[in-house]
Amino acid sequence: MIILGVDPGTAVTGYGVVERRDSGAVALLECGVVRTEAGAPLPRRLREIHDGLAEVMGRHAVDVMAVEGVFFGKNVRTAIILGHGRAAALLAASLRDLPVAEYSPAEVKSAVVGTGRATKEQVQFMVQQLLRLKEPPRPADAADGVAVALCHCTAAALPTAAALRAGGAR
Amino acid sequence: MIILGVDPGTAVTGYGVVERRDSGAVALLECGVVRTEAGAPLPRRLREIHDGLAEVMGRHAVDVMAVEGVFFGKNVRTAIILGHGRAAALLAASLRDLPVAEYSPAEVKSAVVGTGRATKEQVQFMVQQLLRLKEPPRPADAADGVAVALCHCTAAALPTAAALRAGGAR
Repeated sequence: MIILGVDPGTAVTGYGVVERRDSGAVALLECGVVRTEAGAPLPRRLREIHDGLAEVMGRHAVDVMAVEGVFFGKNVRTAIILGHGRAAALLAASLRDLPVAEYSPAEVKSAVVGTGRATKEQVQFMVQQLLRLKEPPRPADAADGVAVALCHCTAAALPTAAALRAGGAR
Repeated sequence: MIILGVDPGTAVTGYGVVERRDSGAVALLECGVVRTEAGAPLPRRLREIHDGLAEVMGRHAVDVMAVEGVFFGKNVRTAIILGHGRAAALLAASLRDLPVAEYSPAEVKSAVVGTGRATKEQVQFMVQQLLRLKEPPRPADAADGVAVALCHCTAAALPTAAALRAGGAR
């Protein structure tokens, strides 16, 4: 099973592609970020996110996209704009008939580090350990996308997969 | 100039296609709503919005899409989900290299009714009057999409078009 994990944002969207083999072993196939042009109109930035993720989907036979769920932060404006970036990622998957699983930031951290309140550095460190990488993924935002993919690996292995929650995989 | 006006929502997206002739006369070409499947996962609903608007774009030689801007309401959850539907509309335009102009709900009401605090019924009535329709557009949500298109007609006719604001037309 090949999983594309995505940590969406309108400026930088981190992604990671991992393969989970039948043995349970997980390997990193690719990770990186989609950067959008600063100051560009929102429609163009959404297209850059869409096109960037579509390219990644074109390079790998992705079975499912895992994405961080809606975050209800204090800053409404930030949350709404983030929602736009996330929608571009969801649509990129849906236009290609790719199932989507959603996880909260706390679920992702908990799956990778063991606590929902882990720091960004702890997530990077554990991503490196779990995938036996010589160095942590670069740029740092890429690690967040990989973490979401790893979260799906864990959830997909469970009998009652969190992946099947409302709004998740079909 | 042919303008596609869109009032986005995740359940119902109203749209109106109007043509503005060189004489300044404006005619309604088509209006309607894109309804998404209640209870369907968000990625699928975003695709339904995208596909529905793409069909409309396929039927008319649209020059620009006008869309209501981000609304910062009290309900964060509603605003974020609305943002997702709006992003699907923006991406549908951007994937087809269509310029996008954004207007606030108050700008749309002000352009059509003359006051930013107009009611939904007043908007419907004025849409009917301005386009010399025998009846108000049905369903009612379609009138909101038409109103956004009419707002762009007004703005585009001005020397300093509101259409050129940040995040707007390219």
